[in-house]
Amino acid sequence: MDYLDLIRELHVDADTKVVLLVMDGLGGLPLTEDGMTELEQAHTPNLDKLAARSLCGLSMPVAPGIEPGSGPGHLSLFGYDPLEHEIGRGVLEALGIGFDLRPEDIAARGNFCTLDENGLVVDRRAGRIPTETNMRLVSKLRTISLPGVQTFVETVKEHRFVLVLRGEGLVDGLTETDPLVTGKPQLKVQALRPEAEPTAALFNRWMQEALKVLADEHPANGCNLRGLAKDPGLPQISEICGWRAGAIATYPMYRGVAKLTGMDVLPTGDTIDDEVETLKEHWAEYDFFFFHVKKTDSYGEDGNFVAKVEVIEHVDHVLPDILALEPDVIIVTGDHSTPAKLKSHSWHELPVLFWAEDIRPDNVTQFGERPCMLGGLGHIRHVDLLPLAMAHARRLTRYGA
Amino acid sequence: MDYLDLIRELHVDADTKVVLLVMDGLGGLPLTEDGMTELEQAHTPNLDKLAARSLCGLSMPVAPGIEPGSGPGHLSLFGYDPLEHEIGRGVLEALGIGFDLRPEDIAARGNFCTLDENGLVVDRRAGRIPTETNMRLVSKLRTISLPGVQTFVETVKEHRFVLVLRGEGLVDGLTETDPLVTGKPQLKVQALRPEAEPTAALFNRWMQEALKVLADEHPANGCNLRGLAKDPGLPQISEICGWRAGAIATYPMYRGVAKLTGMDVLPTGDTIDDEVETLKEHWAEYDFFFFHVKKTDSYGEDGNFVAKVEVIEHVDHVLPDILALEPDVIIVTGDHSTPAKLKSHSWHELPVLFWAEDIRPDNVTQFGERPCMLGGLGHIRHVDLLPLAMAHARRLTRYGA
Repeated sequence: MDYLDLIRELHVDADTKVVLLVMDGLGGLPLTEDGMTELEQAHTPNLDKLAARSLCGLSMPVAPGIEPGSGPGHLSLFGYDPLEHEIGRGVLEALGIGFDLRPEDIAARGNFCTLDENGLVVDRRAGRIPTETNMRLVSKLRTISLPGVQTFVETVKEHRFVLVLRGEGLVDGLTETDPLVTGKPQLKVQALRPEAEPTAALFNRWMQEALKVLADEHPANGCNLRGLAKDPGLPQISEICGWRAGAIATYPMYRGVAKLTGMDVLPTGDTIDDEVETLKEHWAEYDFFFFHVKKTDSYGEDGNFVAKVEVIEHVDHVLPDILALEPDVIIVTGDHSTPAKLKSHSWHELPVLFWAEDIRPDNVTQFGERPCMLGGLGHIRHVDLLPLAMAHARRLTRYGA
Repeated sequence: MDYLDLIRELHVDADTKVVLLVMDGLGGLPLTEDGMTELEQAHTPNLDKLAARSLCGLSMPVAPGIEPGSGPGHLSLFGYDPLEHEIGRGVLEALGIGFDLRPEDIAARGNFCTLDENGLVVDRRAGRIPTETNMRLVSKLRTISLPGVQTFVETVKEHRFVLVLRGEGLVDGLTETDPLVTGKPQLKVQALRPEAEPTAALFNRWMQEALKVLADEHPANGCNLRGLAKDPGLPQISEICGWRAGAIATYPMYRGVAKLTGMDVLPTGDTIDDEVETLKEHWAEYDFFFFHVKKTDSYGEDGNFVAKVEVIEHVDHVLPDILALEPDVIIVTGDHSTPAKLKSHSWHELPVLFWAEDIRPDNVTQFGERPCMLGGLGHIRHVDLLPLAMAHARRLTRYGA
């Protein structure tokens, strides 16, 4: 029996609230062999105090050795096996900007890029052009029309945009144009199954037109399409868990994945403090809150160990405000690791702090990767966290007689 | 490949004996944040001494967050994935009283209940009437006849009885009549698939007659049917493992589940000491003994922390008698947790003590939930214990060349 089906069958109502606090890319590595990870280095008196009353452990996002993208990292936290449920990046981006994606649409994430005179990609992000420039270029791209389908081009931010084709008979199963390394030519969109050939041809035609439209621009004289996909039609979290779920996130992609699972995306500001205010404002309305902190990942990607530590300390600083709301269950973890040392997502497990009234206490007294290795939760999988949260929130009834 | 198929393929004979000592509902919780669990609180010098020579760990009955009933909790201990193999409550109860259930039969657990003048259920257990009253009422229910099928009504104990319909063409996939909460009307038996409609109609007709027959009784002026099901035809443990398995249990349901897996149910008395005597008497006859202690669960359900501690201490007291028989493998654990704090089964993992001559020793020196968190067995699943026991009993040959 599929785990989600089991949860769907067993869920019951309860007057309890669960907070899933996700520090994106939380997991870290020491910069030197005898050093500390970002989380271990951070001064986190509030998290440590909570850890001492919690069940701690390490959690694996997808499978051993697998470095997850943001989609799988979050889906698994929401209880979906990420090997069963895939979301294209284009779909995430489209939903993240509030685009009203329909079942027949195919969405792609677009990245403005810089091409040299031979058409080789020399900067995959076109120097991260300002969002204003992006908006001007998007207006130009909107002039491209394709036979038989509608096209939508929308700015995300900096070098990123969304392209959506809408029309009957569009089929996904398409490759990307981004060579993923510099110094290589762009790729053609290819159909991974015969039925997708006409759709691939439409995207290739659009790309051809886009290169003409952008030819005189600099540095964004080209663009790439990634993650061409349809809405996968995920089972909805409200229906599986029976709870009203609200998402608080400052970045489009995370709002996107939350929306895809059926969560309400709550309007919020740009800072962690704004997010805490949003949590307070909507506390009465939801049973489950996904609270996303982005900058841990951003600084990890930048290799900025110190700044990542500071973001963790900022979260520690606001933790008492969250606890003051008296959640029945609070989980603090990340979607994947982004060690500053690696300047990238990685496959490493995530430290997890799990607090509820009826947890089995363990002996961990500090929230960090090494203390969590000895925690009572042991080594767990992201997908197991949601059922455990539901159990502790008294939202699962007995299985079998 | 299914795990059971693998065991079936690899099992070999050996002159060894395995004892699986199950304290029902063993897993507990501290009553206060800095307190001890029932097992940690119990004075258990013999279990601790054995733990110091054993491999310890925590075991999950079904899946993270899932609170198991007694059926799934035990099936998994016997090596059956409880999400693959489901047993209806009626079947368990019927087998537990030694009813000769046949493949074509459908069994239901019956509960005498109290109905108010509007037919609402006001006591789901009719004040737990004495077994003598139950027997008198069952005689009355035996007067009910149905067209084309035989009916059997048998007392279990207190408010519980078994109803079995026997005849050709009976189909399971039926809902229950118990509303599960008081103040609600009884439900009709419904067919979950069209083929089961005639069978549902028979049960509803029986219920209608039963209410007439019981109308003048008090407090048991009604009854409910639960877990209407057929024998699921489990693969037999003797054939999977190649061993002669004997079950020692004082309560019907546990004898029932053991019988369903093909174990011989050994006659025994009401106490743990009686069970130890039974174990001694039959020691030569079997290779595997399932030894079940019920009262840990009963006191857990009652919220009686102290009495649960005392039952654990009683088991500790008889442990030397069991060890004196010189089993080659002994496992001490529970089918599920029943923390006195929760007065209910729960989803928490079970402490496990696993002794055999060739275990890898760990550093655990006390049998308790927290020490087991750091045990060498790690976090394991109930279904993994049987193959481990067989391996240590030299009853599994090599897999592959």
